[in-house]
Amino acid sequence: MTKLFAMMAILAAAATTAGAALRSQAVEYKQGDTVLEGYVAWDDSVQGKRPGVLVVHDWMGAGPFGNGKCDQLAKLGYVAFAADIYGKGVRPANAQEAGLEAGKYKKDRALLRARATAALQALRANPLVDPKRVAAIGFCFGGTTVVELARSGADLAGIVSFHGGLDSPVPADGKNIKARVLALHGADDPFVPAADLAAFEDEMRKSGVDWQLVKYGGAVHSFTNPAAGSDNSKGAAYNERADRRSWAAMQAFFAEIFR
Amino acid sequence: MTKLFAMMAILAAAATTAGAALRSQAVEYKQGDTVLEGYVAWDDSVQGKRPGVLVVHDWMGAGPFGNGKCDQLAKLGYVAFAADIYGKGVRPANAQEAGLEAGKYKKDRALLRARATAALQALRANPLVDPKRVAAIGFCFGGTTVVELARSGADLAGIVSFHGGLDSPVPADGKNIKARVLALHGADDPFVPAADLAAFEDEMRKSGVDWQLVKYGGAVHSFTNPAAGSDNSKGAAYNERADRRSWAAMQAFFAEIFR
Repeated sequence: MTKLFAMMAILAAAATTAGAALRSQAVEYKQGDTVLEGYVAWDDSVQGKRPGVLVVHDWMGAGPFGNGKCDQLAKLGYVAFAADIYGKGVRPANAQEAGLEAGKYKKDRALLRARATAALQALRANPLVDPKRVAAIGFCFGGTTVVELARSGADLAGIVSFHGGLDSPVPADGKNIKARVLALHGADDPFVPAADLAAFEDEMRKSGVDWQLVKYGGAVHSFTNPAAGSDNSKGAAYNERADRRSWAAMQAFFAEIFR
Repeated sequence: MTKLFAMMAILAAAATTAGAALRSQAVEYKQGDTVLEGYVAWDDSVQGKRPGVLVVHDWMGAGPFGNGKCDQLAKLGYVAFAADIYGKGVRPANAQEAGLEAGKYKKDRALLRARATAALQALRANPLVDPKRVAAIGFCFGGTTVVELARSGADLAGIVSFHGGLDSPVPADGKNIKARVLALHGADDPFVPAADLAAFEDEMRKSGVDWQLVKYGGAVHSFTNPAAGSDNSKGAAYNERADRRSWAAMQAFFAEIFR
């Protein structure tokens, strides 16, 4: 066995021992008078304060997908908090309802920022979280949300968008971004127009942001979500390869920003 | 200390012990009647066959930069072979000479492929190399070279281009590509026109290649090369952040393709 693979084996063994004491619970919090219901996960066997990761759901709202991501992050040693942007009990039943709900926030970026900020505060309030090491990730609508949160000037070490919409009604807000930015994108995503992608790059460039964009060949929208099926022609589909690679890219990014 | 950081410490310790028995030597080989002088590096303390990595130089030709990359790769457990595309003793003294020399091969892709293939054969002939696990990486002109090598249908597990020119005179040759492709690109590189980048993406897409493209914000051409200085306005400059991130992206890619 070469050293290379011995190193991999050591890392794999260490990863396997983690997560033995996964804990999670629902968390109510508020934005203004609106009650929101998030979810927090952590590993009870980890000692002391640790980095915190905010997880923002896709257009279907809070639920198993985002909570599952929190569990995965907890197993990696983080405190992970699943935001609820829509409000307690507001859970779209289908794509049409999801589109209407997500649309409200895409049109009202101030409200979207307020909801995301409330979730960030709830995460920061967790005594296990090292407040200097906090990041936010999001999927589809959640990707849009975490970029918007960064544009509000939020004090974040980094953000990661997975197949998020990257458009901005106010590109000049890019100058408020303090977070390092990692955008993980399906190269064949028909729901993010090329013009939006170009505008996003331009916004990052002009704002002097520390940014990276990864394009995954053969991947369309929703590539991290097994529930999206496997038919690329629908414009949204799961892609195991891009899912695995993007998750690894996020982990490498965290290793850097939480150093 | 959290598990997360314990894992990192284990990995760092394993990495530190590697490279204790770094070996290297010059290697003469031929393409047709032309004598070429490569360089091979490996870790003598590693047992058995291991993956092989071909390293292709930038427009300045074979020399310390590519050889140094081979040494780094040897410390990671690979056999690394620095190609010599120009021929033994052909070492441009300045940018003008480099441009003329590189230009010959960019205009004659058949010759470029033949030279790259000869280097690949020399790497494969090394008894320490597992012939089923071979990749090629290249920098600037070398990035162009490894993509061209893949377009020739070479039997490679993967290729990595660092700030390479990605244009192709025959985009249909993309269908010959068997390698997985990782293109690591400076988002502000003025020497790779947006049209070339778009054409490359289109070639990969139409050819059904397993491809990924990473854009590093704030990075221009030659971002891995400290000799390029630090003035982005010149269009080529070293970028420590992009250098480090791209090298890590390559390692993650290798971990996947050499599994």
